[in-house]
Amino acid sequence: MSSERLIYLPLGGAGEIGMNAYVYGYGKQGSERLILVDLGVTFSDMETSPGVDLIFPDMTWLIENKDRLEAIFITHGHEDHIGAVGHFWDRLGAPVYARTFTANLARRKMVDHGQPEEAVKTASTWPETISAGPFTVGFLPVSHSIPESGALVIDSPAGRVIHTGDFKLDETPVVGEPFDPDLWASVSKGGVQALVCDSTNVFSRHEGRSEATVGPEIEKLVSAAPNMVAATTFASNVARVKTLAEAGHRAGRSICLMGRAMRRMIEAAIETGVLSDFPKVVSPEDAQNIPRENLMLLVTGSQGERRAATAQLARGKHNGMTLKEGDLFLFSSKTIPGNEKGVIRIVNQLSEMGVDVVDDSSGLYHVSGHANGPDLERLQDIVNPKMVVPMHGEHRHLRQHAKLAEAKGRASVVAVNGTMLDLSGDAPKVTEFVETGRTYLDGKVKIGALDGIVRDRIRMALNGHAIVNVILDEDDEPLGEPWVELMGLPEQGSSFAPLVDVLEEDLSQFLGRAGEKTLADDDKLTEGMRRVLRNSAMGEIGKKPEVTVIISRMS
Amino acid sequence: MSSERLIYLPLGGAGEIGMNAYVYGYGKQGSERLILVDLGVTFSDMETSPGVDLIFPDMTWLIENKDRLEAIFITHGHEDHIGAVGHFWDRLGAPVYARTFTANLARRKMVDHGQPEEAVKTASTWPETISAGPFTVGFLPVSHSIPESGALVIDSPAGRVIHTGDFKLDETPVVGEPFDPDLWASVSKGGVQALVCDSTNVFSRHEGRSEATVGPEIEKLVSAAPNMVAATTFASNVARVKTLAEAGHRAGRSICLMGRAMRRMIEAAIETGVLSDFPKVVSPEDAQNIPRENLMLLVTGSQGERRAATAQLARGKHNGMTLKEGDLFLFSSKTIPGNEKGVIRIVNQLSEMGVDVVDDSSGLYHVSGHANGPDLERLQDIVNPKMVVPMHGEHRHLRQHAKLAEAKGRASVVAVNGTMLDLSGDAPKVTEFVETGRTYLDGKVKIGALDGIVRDRIRMALNGHAIVNVILDEDDEPLGEPWVELMGLPEQGSSFAPLVDVLEEDLSQFLGRAGEKTLADDDKLTEGMRRVLRNSAMGEIGKKPEVTVIISRMS
Repeated sequence: MSSERLIYLPLGGAGEIGMNAYVYGYGKQGSERLILVDLGVTFSDMETSPGVDLIFPDMTWLIENKDRLEAIFITHGHEDHIGAVGHFWDRLGAPVYARTFTANLARRKMVDHGQPEEAVKTASTWPETISAGPFTVGFLPVSHSIPESGALVIDSPAGRVIHTGDFKLDETPVVGEPFDPDLWASVSKGGVQALVCDSTNVFSRHEGRSEATVGPEIEKLVSAAPNMVAATTFASNVARVKTLAEAGHRAGRSICLMGRAMRRMIEAAIETGVLSDFPKVVSPEDAQNIPRENLMLLVTGSQGERRAATAQLARGKHNGMTLKEGDLFLFSSKTIPGNEKGVIRIVNQLSEMGVDVVDDSSGLYHVSGHANGPDLERLQDIVNPKMVVPMHGEHRHLRQHAKLAEAKGRASVVAVNGTMLDLSGDAPKVTEFVETGRTYLDGKVKIGALDGIVRDRIRMALNGHAIVNVILDEDDEPLGEPWVELMGLPEQGSSFAPLVDVLEEDLSQFLGRAGEKTLADDDKLTEGMRRVLRNSAMGEIGKKPEVTVIISRMS
Repeated sequence: MSSERLIYLPLGGAGEIGMNAYVYGYGKQGSERLILVDLGVTFSDMETSPGVDLIFPDMTWLIENKDRLEAIFITHGHEDHIGAVGHFWDRLGAPVYARTFTANLARRKMVDHGQPEEAVKTASTWPETISAGPFTVGFLPVSHSIPESGALVIDSPAGRVIHTGDFKLDETPVVGEPFDPDLWASVSKGGVQALVCDSTNVFSRHEGRSEATVGPEIEKLVSAAPNMVAATTFASNVARVKTLAEAGHRAGRSICLMGRAMRRMIEAAIETGVLSDFPKVVSPEDAQNIPRENLMLLVTGSQGERRAATAQLARGKHNGMTLKEGDLFLFSSKTIPGNEKGVIRIVNQLSEMGVDVVDDSSGLYHVSGHANGPDLERLQDIVNPKMVVPMHGEHRHLRQHAKLAEAKGRASVVAVNGTMLDLSGDAPKVTEFVETGRTYLDGKVKIGALDGIVRDRIRMALNGHAIVNVILDEDDEPLGEPWVELMGLPEQGSSFAPLVDVLEEDLSQFLGRAGEKTLADDDKLTEGMRRVLRNSAMGEIGKKPEVTVIISRMS
């Protein structure tokens, strides 16, 4: 038996939706040569990560082992697969392979972060392959909600792994290659050791629907609209943008793209040849001279993002365009969990303007980009792998996906971030746990999720912040009275005196009572003043603020 | 023509879901005698109201006119209709009328806040009525997801208004009175001036389903479960709790109630006679001696609340009970928008324990307590009012509801909080706008939503907080160096020196350069130091913190 082994180690994306990053390795234990699949981000929220700009997987393990890293492969251009490339490339330093459209996006990201764009190599599709140490890797076209998604065929001496990336089984995807069951069957013919597979839609009980089904419905809707129409979807869903534009075009409307991402993405798609026959578009300036009933706006911001074009239109104006009573606004999109409130806010703003909003609740105007439960089963049947490793999903998705595989007699396992699997045998085997977590981009600084910085922010948000200032003379005697400043706290409480006065009085009394030892000791003094302030505040306003004590000594 | 008029003024609930509070008045303009219908709360969130305990409608207008207030009527016991009674009663001072079960809950709230429980009067149902100034008000039983919901029949010299409260058209509601179309028709026979009607489910396109439909499905599920079963729903949904308990009982399981709200609500329901034949329950202590496969837990926390029994079970233990691999957990509930992340967190924790989670995605285990679009149309047909005033809903719901009424030729209007309507004529007429808003309960202090307190908290959460301390001598010369304390900010930035050192150095240089005029002027000095610190931080860490400057003068 070989002492070399094939390992799989998710650093992000397994146990969550977002920030995908999966390591494969082959070689002797502890010196496997490595490749990285995807390097994505996830987005912050006010509840867990206020003020944070982006969230990355903790890449420490891979950075420490960067001398063993042969290459980075990006399956497709969604932010949760590509978004961290520019932020981490300088600390990983391996060539980045991606298909044409994805490589175009990756190069822009490299340039944005001062990294060499030539590190990004454009990969051809299967049967062409790339050598990376012990691995040979090919990009197998697959349909998804962005052009040129590629599953990876990863060959090593331990056999073939197929890593699906995000995908759906769409045989009429409007833009890009259809899912080709014969191609997948032929690639799988020689035996597949492991299918490492997208889990996000495993709970959807019906077969996925094709992108081609939404066009006719959208056209009906747009044709029947008496006034201006605006529609939003993810800009990267080029097929949907095309579907929307063509529906508008056939309904006799001029198409106007609004929002930077929308224009950039369509540019990239045309530049790289994945998009052709896109209806002619007019600029927002020209759009203002076109009768409103002959216009269709395609706008960014389907998730309620505050600065995107949709939110701006809902607040009044974007690029000179305004919505009016009787206009139609279409959300050709699904709201991602956590974004509901932002989207609903916009729908209500549109409602106040008298705009008629149509969303996906009818199921007619949007289809998902991910494989549903029955699609996952179908893919397993086509590939017939020795084992199924569920990736990209929360724990509940991975578990359900593993059950689905096991129900068909296939070996499977739930492996969340940090769980290293040995895929060399007949079933996945957990061999090691690696410490993983999240790294926050805060302004331009990378901080650890557990550094306490964000915890302090959350505490200030929940409890307010009180600052106590006291000055002591050479003999450790207070010079004047202690001074309190408040931020995020009410001005008065139950005694109806100003809160600062009450707090200062209580602190003053404490200082009057405090012994020499306390007054001479910064730690004791700080602790005592904090305790007094928090108790005093609790009595007055019913909550205990965060406290910062500043002691100045005149010595 | 009479110079007296009938007015309607929503102070909360119109333009939002939650914190219902509707004023009706009759009399000469400006001296109408008033009644208040419902006095509810809404819940805070981290994004818009961090640290806030509860949200109330701004009751200023009514408090200023309390001498004109005859009575308060509470339609039912949900927090968004009853929750503020204890908090505002002392400033309103009118008798509170409610049906038995609701009155029982209202009295507990009064006692909790030191208010006289005898101010709450138990009302009988229609045809009995209560006189309140020019009004005669009767409680008309209607089905909803809590026992004894009552629509109000509000008679005045200007005619009859029916205020539905929250309701559904359920003729088999398991607990409480069924919706009785004949009763509603008879009440409406003499002509109804206005139907003021719940709008929350107006976008649901199908007829609402009855509470009675979920029992058989739940029983099938519970009977088939091989191990312990736990189920959660709103405790106040007494019918659902009964349905769950009976399903468990018929499947041969002992029922155990977990969570304070669950036990209190069932107690109140039994005490007031709305609930009878509830299966015998066992205490959590006794439950530990019962074989797990013979147990069914009914637990609080269906919305992912961190301190509720469901969250505690998902984290490990509640009242000595633990969940184990192979147990079944049922969410017999719908997740309210905004709570998705909390609920999903729990589902994943349960998944990690190997617990099988069943939620409402199949549509089998939960029905809504509100009337859907077709139900609203049916009610309009039964009542046949002169006008329809949509209430309780976001703007989009109110607008859709008004459209629905207008499509049938009925006068309607979208009236959000603060919009006073004259209902005396043939159509609702906007007569005045009253300032409304939100009042936050923060600890034990009521603060205005726009007071800036919560805004400061949000800013600290997004940007961190820097405190600058500087001491000046009698001649306005700095004594020593300025001192910076940071909260919620990284320890170092792009120069890799400690951030406080960089900031203190830049502030020190600023003080060195500052002229006498600046040093002598607290405002100028504060403004200058704030600017320097924010710019310096921007260079180092890419973000501008909130700044508090503390200047101490030795004079």
